[in-house]
Amino acid sequence: MKTKSMIGDKIHEFASELFPLNRSVTGKGLRETLKRISAHIPELKIKSVPTATKVFDWIVPKEWDVKEAYIITPSGKKICDFSKNNLHLVGYSIPFKGVLTLDELKKNLHTLPNQPNAIPYVTSYYEERWGFCISQNEFNSLQKGNYKVVINSTLFDGELNYGELLIKGHSDKEIFISTYICHPSMANNELSGPCVVTFLAKWLVELPKTNYSYRVIFIPETIGSITYLSQNYKYMKEKIFAGFNISCIGDDRAYSYIPSRNGKTISDLVAKHVLKWIDPTFIKYTWLDRGSDERQYCAPGIDLPIASILRSKYESYPEYHTSLDNLENVVTPKGLNGGYWAIRKTLEAIEKNKKYKSTILCEPQMSKRGLYPTLAEKNFDKNVSFMMNFISLCDGESSLLDIAEILNVPIWDLYEISNKLQEYKLISIDD
Amino acid sequence: MKTKSMIGDKIHEFASELFPLNRSVTGKGLRETLKRISAHIPELKIKSVPTATKVFDWIVPKEWDVKEAYIITPSGKKICDFSKNNLHLVGYSIPFKGVLTLDELKKNLHTLPNQPNAIPYVTSYYEERWGFCISQNEFNSLQKGNYKVVINSTLFDGELNYGELLIKGHSDKEIFISTYICHPSMANNELSGPCVVTFLAKWLVELPKTNYSYRVIFIPETIGSITYLSQNYKYMKEKIFAGFNISCIGDDRAYSYIPSRNGKTISDLVAKHVLKWIDPTFIKYTWLDRGSDERQYCAPGIDLPIASILRSKYESYPEYHTSLDNLENVVTPKGLNGGYWAIRKTLEAIEKNKKYKSTILCEPQMSKRGLYPTLAEKNFDKNVSFMMNFISLCDGESSLLDIAEILNVPIWDLYEISNKLQEYKLISIDD
Amino acid sequence: MKTKSMIGDKIHEFASELFPLNRSVTGKGLRETLKRISAHIPELKIKSVPTATKVFDWIVPKEWDVKEAYIITPSGKKICDFSKNNLHLVGYSIPFKGVLTLDELKKNLHTLPNQPNAIPYVTSYYEERWGFCISQNEFNSLQKGNYKVVINSTLFDGELNYGELLIKGHSDKEIFISTYICHPSMANNELSGPCVVTFLAKWLVELPKTNYSYRVIFIPETIGSITYLSQNYKYMKEKIFAGFNISCIGDDRAYSYIPSRNGKTISDLVAKHVLKWIDPTFIKYTWLDRGSDERQYCAPGIDLPIASILRSKYESYPEYHTSLDNLENVVTPKGLNGGYWAIRKTLEAIEKNKKYKSTILCEPQMSKRGLYPTLAEKNFDKNVSFMMNFISLCDGESSLLDIAEILNVPIWDLYEISNKLQEYKLISIDD
Repeated sequence: MKTKSMIGDKIHEFASELFPLNRSVTGKGLRETLKRISAHIPELKIKSVPTATKVFDWIVPKEWDVKEAYIITPSGKKICDFSKNNLHLVGYSIPFKGVLTLDELKKNLHTLPNQPNAIPYVTSYYEERWGFCISQNEFNSLQKGNYKVVINSTLFDGELNYGELLIKGHSDKEIFISTYICHPSMANNELSGPCVVTFLAKWLVELPKTNYSYRVIFIPETIGSITYLSQNYKYMKEKIFAGFNISCIGDDRAYSYIPSRNGKTISDLVAKHVLKWIDPTFIKYTWLDRGSDERQYCAPGIDLPIASILRSKYESYPEYHTSLDNLENVVTPKGLNGGYWAIRKTLEAIEKNKKYKSTILCEPQMSKRGLYPTLAEKNFDKNVSFMMNFISLCDGESSLLDIAEILNVPIWDLYEISNKLQEYKLISIDD
Repeated sequence: MKTKSMIGDKIHEFASELFPLNRSVTGKGLRETLKRISAHIPELKIKSVPTATKVFDWIVPKEWDVKEAYIITPSGKKICDFSKNNLHLVGYSIPFKGVLTLDELKKNLHTLPNQPNAIPYVTSYYEERWGFCISQNEFNSLQKGNYKVVINSTLFDGELNYGELLIKGHSDKEIFISTYICHPSMANNELSGPCVVTFLAKWLVELPKTNYSYRVIFIPETIGSITYLSQNYKYMKEKIFAGFNISCIGDDRAYSYIPSRNGKTISDLVAKHVLKWIDPTFIKYTWLDRGSDERQYCAPGIDLPIASILRSKYESYPEYHTSLDNLENVVTPKGLNGGYWAIRKTLEAIEKNKKYKSTILCEPQMSKRGLYPTLAEKNFDKNVSFMMNFISLCDGESSLLDIAEILNVPIWDLYEISNKLQEYKLISIDD
Repeated sequence: MKTKSMIGDKIHEFASELFPLNRSVTGKGLRETLKRISAHIPELKIKSVPTATKVFDWIVPKEWDVKEAYIITPSGKKICDFSKNNLHLVGYSIPFKGVLTLDELKKNLHTLPNQPNAIPYVTSYYEERWGFCISQNEFNSLQKGNYKVVINSTLFDGELNYGELLIKGHSDKEIFISTYICHPSMANNELSGPCVVTFLAKWLVELPKTNYSYRVIFIPETIGSITYLSQNYKYMKEKIFAGFNISCIGDDRAYSYIPSRNGKTISDLVAKHVLKWIDPTFIKYTWLDRGSDERQYCAPGIDLPIASILRSKYESYPEYHTSLDNLENVVTPKGLNGGYWAIRKTLEAIEKNKKYKSTILCEPQMSKRGLYPTLAEKNFDKNVSFMMNFISLCDGESSLLDIAEILNVPIWDLYEISNKLQEYKLISIDD
């Protein structure tokens, strides 16, 4: 049941706009993606780090640019045309021009025999090579003869780019959101993350001042998070108390969660609570199932409180890392909508997750405030009972999340009652 | 199987004596109840707190007295006669005299449509109104016409009363017992509590000096505990290390337990242990199921270690808060007996629950003391094995309760062995 | 499937050599046993403690020597001949010569009616008496008449002996191994323990220097451990951080574990881990099932971290403490082999169980070290994934055992990878 104003529609539209760009860990496609995100959140700052900068154990790679890439078959047909699908070219392929026999060519062709109509996604960032990706079916149809290979690419000292947004709240304690923009034309992994995060950032920017500050980054995966951490991790360890890596958030087949390394941070607790109430069958992965930038954020010595909320996790769905991961069959407006709200409810819960304390010793006399029936009868009002239970748990030590867990309700069911009791000065926030 | 000398018989007899009195949160019936309890425990001190005294968020209500109350039907029949059953009058009804049509009268009549032969129990302590309670069957039989209503009651500045008993033990650390005496003619909820506690207090008074001190109060529910706490809670927080609210302790249909708010106090641990061994099917309620004075004793900021041991909990049995909760079908000598012993065993367990320490390094040589067979054969004596296990657990850190849990026996199975080993100076109490 | 070089064969051969000796808590048989153990581990020191030495609550008993013991039946047949089976004589029998009627004799005969062909094992160390053990079948065949009884034994002030071996490692923190040598001709309980420990000690002596020091003692049960503790327990509490009591380690019917008293020492954790991976059906006993020298090592106030690894536990198998516990049907080379390796793997695991720390912030770049594929494809190498998981858990707080538990693999599966990553300086031991 799709509603007209569903935000998932807008996110899907934005994903369609970004889909064809040739994103990689560096380069024009990545910069263009950041530019289009800026159209939605003008506060986004676009940063650059020069090629060859040392970042912990790594160095920032050269910038990669592709003008054209294709193969001409013996019969003169152009295949593996990069301009038609950027997955055809192995990511970071060096320039190459030459004529090869079919056998020679095949050494540089990548297929997925078990998914014969899919073009695989292959990269080689840290070793210079070239190659093409092609469906097994097309591969099988290639005839003997000479193939002309053209890769008009350049690898040069340039820069690595990322986008960063800081939204200041009442507190300088930060909630951190990271997503990645280095994948070319694939939908769930990974256009869903940056597109959903764009609309979450838009929501945060437009909110009245939040309790906490928010730091949102759009980076290339792995080298981007390592680069960012190498320059900011001390500050981050001091300020960030919760956060999420956002990826694979656009299909409508599952909700999933990957814990931080210790699995016990506030990000973990809130994520599990929210997902449980959105979808009791949500999938709980373990730290050993991770595979994105939480690998860096939760690495030993970094130890940031970053968990992951996903729909169908990378590696878990058949279209993963192939041309089949598209905006028609995999990522849908409804899927994006569910992902957006799962994360938004999580952020709202962290905002609200204060410790409340009853201002009165013993139970307050609710009837004099009109909050309690004056006639005591056998069958007691459930709502009154719920309110008295809530007050009894406001001990200044239990957070709203703890109370929601004890009362076995979604935390959002407590927002109204906690506001009301604060207005009546029966509870107060205990900082 | 009822034994002649069962204490439940005496408690039941005492309950029958108290049953007709018109108890409420204040007034003559409550004072008369305290007076009759004093006949069993002369050490009981009867206290009074004036009307309008501020007690935390509440004020002590006016005193309520009823001389007569009834309705005359159009045919001249006297119904809802307070002198026949004090449940007929809504508790704290203001005085009223008048003639009403049936329709007008009905606005002030309370029934239980689902229990058509029961008179409900209704009160209105904190809003001035009047009303009668009547069975649905009798209600249905009322004919059109004019009804004469007489409520000859008074509400006046008087006092709230309660009874208090302190039994000094070797230690000034206190075990606290609270029960309530504000319910009119109903048996399980609540004459069972004060009657059982009267006989427990009698037992405590007659004991040789106990290890701990005991403080026992007979109060009106809610306003009584709030009043008592408002005047004593600092002292109570310092001295009380265990305690129980006693209510609904007289039927023979179940054993039940309600935890303190944190559920981990010594009162909770001992209560659960004792009940498990009395009745493995005992019902474990949660803090959310509470409904008596533990609401005050365990309120945030008060935080006393008070749990509840009950038979069938208030709200859980059909006769609850109706005229059907009587001394014939609900509360029985056997039920009261079981309730008495459950609490007595709990108090005994707390008295005995010391930490013991082996006085000897390595196992003692039991055979030279005649505590061990001198011939070592294949099939070892179970009792000797049990004794050696017990000694091995006397590490000065485990309490007798901990040891009973490890050995999977009721704590009372360890009283004899721990006494014997103390006599042999093989273990000692580790304070 | 028995291999030629299986160490269980050598251990079984050694057990056969020791089997006929008349071991008891003191005496020649015990000394001869120690002498033959020394043949395998010449570093073993043989100690003596004089009769009547006070050891905690006990005193060292007299030394017991037997020259001959038998009974002559009315028909002149020699039965219960100690020279044929030393189980025939009750351990520590006083000297006796006399002629008794069958009825008189029977008062001093011990049988096992439920195991009619077994000679039971009976001792009387701490009360002076004499007696013979005989199978129920032979007992039933005894005819009326006069029986000549001859027990040519002596009890005299002598000494209690034990063997002690210290193997110094890099650290003076000690791993403690205790086994007992006081049982006469029985195989699982107890020749298996000293024989397996002899070969473990041999292995330890021949190893290059270990991380930890090892202290191995061969003692009489109970009085031996009490004696040893009374003279060494302060030193032991300071130095010993892990250890095992070794008994019943020679049959092939089960693997078993008995915890230390608190059940949470490193000995417990490693033993449970190793046994789980050797035999997922291994039996977990509780502290209440104990029955050997862990009774002393884990006694309150002693509190050493000693757990037990066994095959079929004493008391759990039918042949226990009878002549049926032999080297043919109960203890086998395969059984001894399994027991030896279970303990050896446990000791190896403790040696290796360090805390490792990643030396690099964020993930290291594995590809530049040739440890990672340079081409990123859809189907990721399981071994690489395992290695990255391992590194991610090297946080300086988790031990190798903790990591093995998280990765759900035997700890020995991590020895190679941890060595390799140390060579590459990607992890380091965090002391």
